[in-house]
Amino acid sequence: MIKTPIIMDVDTGIDDAIALTVALQAQSLDIKGITVVAGNQTIEKTLKNTLEVVEYLGRTDIPVAKGAAKPLVAPQIIAEETHGESGLGNAKLPAASIQPVEEDAVAFMRRVLEESSEKITLVPTGPLTNIALLLMAYPHVKEKIEKIVVMGGGAFEGNASATSEFNILVDPHAASVVFASGLPIVMCGLDVTMKAYTTKEDIQAVRDTGTKAGEFCADAFRHYYDMYTKYTRLPGCAVHDAVTIAYLLHPEMITVKPATVRVDIDGVHSYACTASDFRPWRDKSKDNALVCMDIDRQAFVKLIIDACKNY
Amino acid sequence: MIKTPIIMDVDTGIDDAIALTVALQAQSLDIKGITVVAGNQTIEKTLKNTLEVVEYLGRTDIPVAKGAAKPLVAPQIIAEETHGESGLGNAKLPAASIQPVEEDAVAFMRRVLEESSEKITLVPTGPLTNIALLLMAYPHVKEKIEKIVVMGGGAFEGNASATSEFNILVDPHAASVVFASGLPIVMCGLDVTMKAYTTKEDIQAVRDTGTKAGEFCADAFRHYYDMYTKYTRLPGCAVHDAVTIAYLLHPEMITVKPATVRVDIDGVHSYACTASDFRPWRDKSKDNALVCMDIDRQAFVKLIIDACKNY
Amino acid sequence: MIKTPIIMDVDTGIDDAIALTVALQAQSLDIKGITVVAGNQTIEKTLKNTLEVVEYLGRTDIPVAKGAAKPLVAPQIIAEETHGESGLGNAKLPAASIQPVEEDAVAFMRRVLEESSEKITLVPTGPLTNIALLLMAYPHVKEKIEKIVVMGGGAFEGNASATSEFNILVDPHAASVVFASGLPIVMCGLDVTMKAYTTKEDIQAVRDTGTKAGEFCADAFRHYYDMYTKYTRLPGCAVHDAVTIAYLLHPEMITVKPATVRVDIDGVHSYACTASDFRPWRDKSKDNALVCMDIDRQAFVKLIIDACKNY
Amino acid sequence: MIKTPIIMDVDTGIDDAIALTVALQAQSLDIKGITVVAGNQTIEKTLKNTLEVVEYLGRTDIPVAKGAAKPLVAPQIIAEETHGESGLGNAKLPAASIQPVEEDAVAFMRRVLEESSEKITLVPTGPLTNIALLLMAYPHVKEKIEKIVVMGGGAFEGNASATSEFNILVDPHAASVVFASGLPIVMCGLDVTMKAYTTKEDIQAVRDTGTKAGEFCADAFRHYYDMYTKYTRLPGCAVHDAVTIAYLLHPEMITVKPATVRVDIDGVHSYACTASDFRPWRDKSKDNALVCMDIDRQAFVKLIIDACKNY
Repeated sequence: MIKTPIIMDVDTGIDDAIALTVALQAQSLDIKGITVVAGNQTIEKTLKNTLEVVEYLGRTDIPVAKGAAKPLVAPQIIAEETHGESGLGNAKLPAASIQPVEEDAVAFMRRVLEESSEKITLVPTGPLTNIALLLMAYPHVKEKIEKIVVMGGGAFEGNASATSEFNILVDPHAASVVFASGLPIVMCGLDVTMKAYTTKEDIQAVRDTGTKAGEFCADAFRHYYDMYTKYTRLPGCAVHDAVTIAYLLHPEMITVKPATVRVDIDGVHSYACTASDFRPWRDKSKDNALVCMDIDRQAFVKLIIDACKNY
Repeated sequence: MIKTPIIMDVDTGIDDAIALTVALQAQSLDIKGITVVAGNQTIEKTLKNTLEVVEYLGRTDIPVAKGAAKPLVAPQIIAEETHGESGLGNAKLPAASIQPVEEDAVAFMRRVLEESSEKITLVPTGPLTNIALLLMAYPHVKEKIEKIVVMGGGAFEGNASATSEFNILVDPHAASVVFASGLPIVMCGLDVTMKAYTTKEDIQAVRDTGTKAGEFCADAFRHYYDMYTKYTRLPGCAVHDAVTIAYLLHPEMITVKPATVRVDIDGVHSYACTASDFRPWRDKSKDNALVCMDIDRQAFVKLIIDACKNY
Repeated sequence: MIKTPIIMDVDTGIDDAIALTVALQAQSLDIKGITVVAGNQTIEKTLKNTLEVVEYLGRTDIPVAKGAAKPLVAPQIIAEETHGESGLGNAKLPAASIQPVEEDAVAFMRRVLEESSEKITLVPTGPLTNIALLLMAYPHVKEKIEKIVVMGGGAFEGNASATSEFNILVDPHAASVVFASGLPIVMCGLDVTMKAYTTKEDIQAVRDTGTKAGEFCADAFRHYYDMYTKYTRLPGCAVHDAVTIAYLLHPEMITVKPATVRVDIDGVHSYACTASDFRPWRDKSKDNALVCMDIDRQAFVKLIIDACKNY
Repeated sequence: MIKTPIIMDVDTGIDDAIALTVALQAQSLDIKGITVVAGNQTIEKTLKNTLEVVEYLGRTDIPVAKGAAKPLVAPQIIAEETHGESGLGNAKLPAASIQPVEEDAVAFMRRVLEESSEKITLVPTGPLTNIALLLMAYPHVKEKIEKIVVMGGGAFEGNASATSEFNILVDPHAASVVFASGLPIVMCGLDVTMKAYTTKEDIQAVRDTGTKAGEFCADAFRHYYDMYTKYTRLPGCAVHDAVTIAYLLHPEMITVKPATVRVDIDGVHSYACTASDFRPWRDKSKDNALVCMDIDRQAFVKLIIDACKNY
């Protein structure tokens, strides 16, 4: 079986944890490493959560590297209300015995990319700080990057402001660098991720898998589900970050539209907006992204449940 | 019959001409005046076109006032490619014998509003220069304005750039003033107007009315139809400006969504964007607009055809 | 004697009051009118102050017109701390019996300019709201404007922020319109006005004139002097607005440098900055301003004292 | 003798070469390394020039590390007209036999700082790309940085635009990061560097030292002198970058003013401006910079001549 080599870049986070759960058991993914960034919570917590999830799910073979504690330029924001004080909602995991590698995230990614004989796909599900630093400091590694499958942005929706999504708002300058990098981007933004939700019944089905992964995911979902059904009109909670893994494993599940996407770093009302040009008469030679627009929600939920069963 | 008092503010323009055709025969509208602004073409041409349309359609009783030749701050842009050298595509009308009133658009609107015992609805279908000047110079007239039904912007679409619609892009500073004015706005933007198109068959039906209005409209549509079917994916041409009149006459034809809409005057990629906040958890007390999202296209086309028949 | 026709546009204000005191007795100025704008205080107070000063100084022959209550786009700011609750510091004037003309400031300026056979110089000493509205709404009057001698901005200094002067910060969009209007501008900004201060001794000399004007000016200076010596390093209070009149009466008193000056309406740290290009290799054909850099302070103070003596 | 440990970060460049000439012979400086950035020329040329200068001046003991080829976010600009096709004007040096270290500039600076027992001063004389990358990727090294003595910006002058200096304009985002880093900054900007010029006679005196360094510097000055006397009003060429070394060796030669300095990354007319707040009533606890305002030019020129004599 040909495996797709990837590096995940996470700010674990409830939905990062679900993304990890799906990814860590996927036979078709070759996870070269997991780098961690501040985002949903501080770097201390996102790193702790990541190590705990990786160890809990039995993948201590995958190196974890600590990354940026702060956005490039903008003041730090975290999402404690959404992800809870720990960052993992109501889920509790045993303290991890594993440690991050000594290299920081940027040095780690640089080395892995340089040493790789094949192109690697980057899968960031948090603010794009680490990825931007990598691309700015070591632009020569671009030739080793297959594409960037990012959870972030939204062509037609915002959640952190009228026009911006949380991951982009946290570090718009980093996002601006990544979207202008020339690398092909698959944007799993709110357009698709708000359709990738799990209902109460779905969450019960996750729990009913009876596995340790299922129990963890169901626990993690609890706080998240309450938040989403309280504040949004969704009948469940959007599992944003897991859409990236769904795209990698089953692209046929997701509808995409090509576009030229740029990140606004200066507008007042559109600050951190992923301005997406779909106009048929645009200069398509500047297209840099496939924007995910829709998902087969049932298949997506099944993907999560099946993943939990595999542990 | 109770008539709705309105002032139209136009940059005539093919679709302004259709809007005028529908409005000028509507029994339920009391058109207090028509003010003209530069936009689709220079002020000389949009004024000439407006006078010709008004006279051709037999409504020389309605005062026409000349307005702003240039945007407030931004450099001037016109849409000659879309609306042709004359601004009316292939349509040719007899030279008008009527003249604009001596008052300029701002002074005219100010006086009419001050003298009116009832609130008046403003219906701008071009750049918002005249309306912004009115509101900035004479803020006390706001209490005489019922609402502003504007063709402009787009919550989820741009045509002049990735994120901006032509009327807003021409004078974003004016739009910013109008959307921040505190007055209730009905935004007939690209979200709805790109669904309000006329096909080849529709245009033939307009011509088949056999009236002078039908002939004029069909002639005007010709250039516009060619442009739209060449550059967009629409099977016809979007009659943007006429949607404002459809909303006034038959609001039931149109689906609206409340939102907080602000105009970005500084972003690079989102310059002139109508940033629309629909988030369920936004502060709804700041909502300033009903954003038109959908239209019963058949009913809309019938409205135009029926209007033509009435001449 | 050939008199220079001017329209003053004031937000009276302590230093506007001094500017008026000098201007209203000047034989070489033909003051066509005084328009009033909100700035140092609300429009109600700046209008009241202006009427009182004009009546107190015996120039009820000059029409006063009420102008804009709010900046074009930006939220309103006033300078109560600097100019006191009334706007005139410790000075108290009898209530005015005169009234403003019925026309608002914009209509008044427009008419006066249109009717004038000679070009008129505009002398704004507050935010540029009225002037911008005039130029935007009635661009044809530009040909009747000789130049604009403005108190505002600063090539190398800010007072309201690191890089902005108060009048410009209050309405940067208006300032942007005025500086981009194509009209010649004399910028009496902080570069010169911070050198145009009056010391304790100067203020005593003003009082010692023994005239009603001298008494009023000395009273007005008191609060202002305290503010300036408390917060700045000046040995007196800067009589910003009066520098415009000094320039008109005695240009030889003031050193100027030609420049291309533009107003920034979007930068975060340089918002409302009058970006002044003095580079020898700039495109001098775009120069729009003479930037006042220095003043003969003794001559300036004498001008004020002599003006007071004349009442 | 206690030596000041420094890392130079250069985009060599005529005036970088002079700065190197002065620094490389200074007994009181302990140069831990020289990192190179694109700026005056492309990274290939600035690296080549740096290696050649270092070898020519006999300091092959100092490690040289290659840094960023492009600005963080902004499109690349170089200054070929000012520094010539090679970047060193008319000067020709033998090809260098030495090589840069294997580590890139960021990794090099990180390691040297981490390993150092004392704080090190950074001395960037080009765009701040390398320094910003270091501070963003490895914020923990800030505690090992004594201060940053930077050639860049200008409180009251621009050369690359009305309000921006070349090094800042090339990478304003990097400059923004550095100035907001919390580290103490000595800003050797145009305010002082335009006063640090060498006349024809000064350049002859440099040549008359008769040393290889004197010959090289005099050759390098030639093109530079012609440029400056052609385009500016200076009677010589401004040796911008060498002012940083003058500050390190003889701070008494230079007048400084404390200020809060921020870099504007969004204004149109003030883009890349180092907005400097000197207002006496500012919040001085936010001061981050000593802005160099004046220099004893004779002493500065003597410093360069004496340095040349030492080779």
